Amino acid sequence: MQIAVVVYDGFTALDAVGPYEMLVRTPGAETVFVAERPGPVRTDTGALGIVADRSLAEVTRPDVVVVPGGPGQSALMEHRPLLDWLCAADAASTWTASVCTGSLLLAAAGLLEGRRATSHWLALDQLQRFGARPAEERVVVDGKYVTAAGVSAGIDMGLALLGRIAGDDVARTVQLATEYDPRPPYDAGSPRKAPAHLVEALRASSRFVLTRSS
Amino acid sequence: MQIAVVVYDGFTALDAVGPYEMLVRTPGAETVFVAERPGPVRTDTGALGIVADRSLAEVTRPDVVVVPGGPGQSALMEHRPLLDWLCAADAASTWTASVCTGSLLLAAAGLLEGRRATSHWLALDQLQRFGARPAEERVVVDGKYVTAAGVSAGIDMGLALLGRIAGDDVARTVQLATEYDPRPPYDAGSPRKAPAHLVEALRASSRFVLTRSS
Repeated sequence: MQIAVVVYDGFTALDAVGPYEMLVRTPGAETVFVAERPGPVRTDTGALGIVADRSLAEVTRPDVVVVPGGPGQSALMEHRPLLDWLCAADAASTWTASVCTGSLLLAAAGLLEGRRATSHWLALDQLQRFGARPAEERVVVDGKYVTAAGVSAGIDMGLALLGRIAGDDVARTVQLATEYDPRPPYDAGSPRKAPAHLVEALRASSRFVLTRSS
Repeated sequence: MQIAVVVYDGFTALDAVGPYEMLVRTPGAETVFVAERPGPVRTDTGALGIVADRSLAEVTRPDVVVVPGGPGQSALMEHRPLLDWLCAADAASTWTASVCTGSLLLAAAGLLEGRRATSHWLALDQLQRFGARPAEERVVVDGKYVTAAGVSAGIDMGLALLGRIAGDDVARTVQLATEYDPRPPYDAGSPRKAPAHLVEALRASSRFVLTRSS
């Protein structure tokens, strides 16, 4: 079994590393970071480079595809080399997954038509433009498509997917090994819970990034 | 303000990327990944390389030091170039932090003597050998020393530290932006919650790694 985590300039690191850390110990699986060109890829903040060990062309039939999100997604919404690869990889995959605005890339590739799917709360509405049915949930499974909400939701998604691939006890063991017993020091992790003025401020400051592609 | 995330061969990716993702948007701060030698550093699984942009020698007075854990930690417990750097950096830092077995490196450098500190649940006892006082908590703050439990606890630590550095509303905004409203699909994230047979199996399989340095 091969698990491919797709990275690109401007992806959000935790979107990719969260599911990676949950899935990488899948018994019998190889996990590989792929990008259009192999080598270091910078994340959205510019402060971190992650190495893609293989090019998209070298990884043609992964069993599991994981697409992170991040501000860099918007520049790729019509980028055929990536979208065509997603279509081809999806044709043979067992699971096709995304985190955050990675679902917009799956949707732009035409893979989520008629499917229930989620995304970052600031981007959820955009799924409709591509025929997907936005679902305000942390992890959405529709057939073989598994989409997660923003950034940190990729950890929950990775663990849920691991359970389906390798069984509940393997997933519980990885949860225990990574001590994933979260205790956020604040309770502001969703727009329903955060103070309204912070939600509005973030919505306003994100408008430019999120509408760049429209 | 400069935030230095220290990486080394065999560190655990999420240990570093969790706090990075919380701290990197600290207003006015630069975040930098540092290692003994700059360039790609492989994580514990071998499946991922993360780029250290600077050498330890180039980063002499970070305001915040973050040390991740991982199986690679055990080979460094007497490695003077790293331990001496930790001592020197700590002498000028405002905050010195760790995730998982990163606290054992802080302890080996002599920085946690008499301090309350935590670590991965499988490694917690080892803190005593270095004069630290093990605390079975997810995040422990003792003076300027902030230690987190295993792997994913670095996210909670990063958010708590961000609140102290930049204020509660900045931390809440980052929590909202990263949609950190966790919903683990299982409830096995600590040895108190996981099924006993899984706890014992993990303890048995980890014995080799965790005692390699003793």
